[in-house]
Amino acid sequence: MLQSKLFYKTFKENPKEAEALSHAFLIRGGFIDRAAAGVYTFLPLGFLVLKKIENIIREEMNAIGGQEILMPVLASKENWEKTGRWTSFEELFKLKGQNEKEYALNPTHEEMISPLAKKFVFSHKDLPFHLFQIQTKFRNELRVKSGLLRTREFLMKDLYSFHSSQEDLDKYYSKVEKAYFKIFKRCGVKVLKAFASGGSFSKYSHEFQAPTEAGEDLIYVCRKCSVAVNKEIKQDKCQECGGAEFEEKKAVEVGNIFKLGDKYSLPFELKFKDEDGKEKLVVMGCYGIGLGRLMASVVELNNDKNGIIWPKEVSPFDVHLIRIGRAKKVRDKAEKLYEDLQKKGFSVLYDDRDEISAGQKFAESDLIGISTRLVVSEKTLKQNSAELKERAKNKICLVKFSHIYQAI
Amino acid sequence: MLQSKLFYKTFKENPKEAEALSHAFLIRGGFIDRAAAGVYTFLPLGFLVLKKIENIIREEMNAIGGQEILMPVLASKENWEKTGRWTSFEELFKLKGQNEKEYALNPTHEEMISPLAKKFVFSHKDLPFHLFQIQTKFRNELRVKSGLLRTREFLMKDLYSFHSSQEDLDKYYSKVEKAYFKIFKRCGVKVLKAFASGGSFSKYSHEFQAPTEAGEDLIYVCRKCSVAVNKEIKQDKCQECGGAEFEEKKAVEVGNIFKLGDKYSLPFELKFKDEDGKEKLVVMGCYGIGLGRLMASVVELNNDKNGIIWPKEVSPFDVHLIRIGRAKKVRDKAEKLYEDLQKKGFSVLYDDRDEISAGQKFAESDLIGISTRLVVSEKTLKQNSAELKERAKNKICLVKFSHIYQAI
Repeated sequence: MLQSKLFYKTFKENPKEAEALSHAFLIRGGFIDRAAAGVYTFLPLGFLVLKKIENIIREEMNAIGGQEILMPVLASKENWEKTGRWTSFEELFKLKGQNEKEYALNPTHEEMISPLAKKFVFSHKDLPFHLFQIQTKFRNELRVKSGLLRTREFLMKDLYSFHSSQEDLDKYYSKVEKAYFKIFKRCGVKVLKAFASGGSFSKYSHEFQAPTEAGEDLIYVCRKCSVAVNKEIKQDKCQECGGAEFEEKKAVEVGNIFKLGDKYSLPFELKFKDEDGKEKLVVMGCYGIGLGRLMASVVELNNDKNGIIWPKEVSPFDVHLIRIGRAKKVRDKAEKLYEDLQKKGFSVLYDDRDEISAGQKFAESDLIGISTRLVVSEKTLKQNSAELKERAKNKICLVKFSHIYQAI
Repeated sequence: MLQSKLFYKTFKENPKEAEALSHAFLIRGGFIDRAAAGVYTFLPLGFLVLKKIENIIREEMNAIGGQEILMPVLASKENWEKTGRWTSFEELFKLKGQNEKEYALNPTHEEMISPLAKKFVFSHKDLPFHLFQIQTKFRNELRVKSGLLRTREFLMKDLYSFHSSQEDLDKYYSKVEKAYFKIFKRCGVKVLKAFASGGSFSKYSHEFQAPTEAGEDLIYVCRKCSVAVNKEIKQDKCQECGGAEFEEKKAVEVGNIFKLGDKYSLPFELKFKDEDGKEKLVVMGCYGIGLGRLMASVVELNNDKNGIIWPKEVSPFDVHLIRIGRAKKVRDKAEKLYEDLQKKGFSVLYDDRDEISAGQKFAESDLIGISTRLVVSEKTLKQNSAELKERAKNKICLVKFSHIYQAI
């Protein structure tokens, strides 16, 4: 992509409502735009990051047998009444159609996937299965804050699993936990597993908390085993190892996993005939990751004072190729490099602009934070191998042709 | 994918509300599920087709310089009031937040993208640009019908283009028209360009109409040039060539393109400074394709009495590999084939089920309609080359190893 054609614009000033660093950098770098309070557009740069995150999640969900579907936003009132959540779920957006029919905007999809599963499950042979989607959700929040960290409309990956026994659910729950750690690691976000409140079926659920000052949650990290617990259910001793010393940290909840048991199969009469011929309730689990919140967390944990430093796997482009100067020699080298890199399968943002100073180009590049930067200038064309290798180590690579590929 | 693990179920009976063949086949084949009237879930098979269609559209939009973004569903009342459409757009879903703030669910995004563009456009140097998204839209329809053909919630690709002059818009409009013909062709849907009513800026807009009995629209196709006109604006003579004889056809509108001119740049004061130093209004175009409606049209136009016949590019899998019989020799061949095909990069649905009869397997395969079918049975292992080649021509391939790859 030629930078002269990219639809973006960087801003020097932090947006006035910005409370979190990720909010400021994502707006200032032209990744997102605020459409209304707690409602954001993903601009081309932000959309590229979003797709990278989405694909990482998709790969890891497929790897544990998840099958992808897409459920609607509009939910009929009837199903939300069945679970009692039409009135008890405070943040439910409600609306009325021309036909006077009432709908909710799904903030989560148990009320939709349970009656769906009911049409497909009859016998123990139909179990287990695991369905996920990456889809837009809504919460009628009284207050929003911190850019993508708390919004009224947001993208979620939600996975639902259906089992014939608690043992089978337990086994799958552990699989999902491992997949979640992989996802967050690939995104460059260090997370802690935290105990959270469960339901009638299971004493605890678990959250994946990314410690950062921008976080709204308070967690208590066991000094012995590094497993955390959220504020709500903190006890004297660690639920994981019995340790008694904790460190208080602010954190962002980027994911959670929950053993639902029969909480939803009961009201929807989601049953199956077991091997013993008896009718039983399907045992369910649900597992969420907020994509926008994860993107913001990536930024919170990967930056310096000048801007974002995207981890490789979620960088909007593989390479930021910056040409400094207009000399024919420099231009030719840069253009050849742009073609070559793309032929090798790298995605490249090429700063081809003539009217922008070197200082401005570097400042923008620092802010946008593509994971690898290549600079072509008259100076770099003269540098020797040792100098270039040294610079490549620092990720800001002033390169000759021969050194590029080892640097990326 | 092993068919024994795929989350799907076929149904023998047409759903009672099914008015269109595509509706019946998509429900009966386990591609979609009705969540509420006019609101559907894409199940794994349907989701795979949806992704194929999405990627075709994305490729063709990127090829004409479209940059992908993602705008929200929630729109602030304020922007819809600016264009007068808060009250004049009848099918607008409206809702209220906890903060008493009113929102619309975007049925189209001019009211969102125009104020967005305003933050990024200042000079003629910032133009042209072309932004698109593939996103969920809402229409508060009084009546819905025919499955995915008319729904309250649907996926749209909407592209918006921004220009400094009408000439530049005209040039881009033609590019989009060509891209649209490519998209529909790749999806296996023959479409006609049809004149439709324009606005104050442009006398006509254009629709892409797929002739089929399931269509809600009436179009009049010029016998001379095959360009159509919709009922609303039909005159005595063809707008394209002056021809005077028409054939009336039912059709589904799968796309439209529209020269907006300054219809939205005026209320949002979307201006730029031109080379001559004068402030001018940005000239806009908008271009839509309904993904669900396109999927249904693919089915309307590619089927036989037993089910769907997906065109290759939008088939949920590349190959349906069907094993008939449980003999070790047959099982080994089928499994080897399953591995080999996947290694070669083909996506394969492998009917590995033991308890299902050959007849049932073929009936399901006919209904689901994957573009290429390979059958492994004791009989096929004995057939000679000529027989197999003949069958390969008819797409239903009873194959030996050596004949497979040329058949796909």
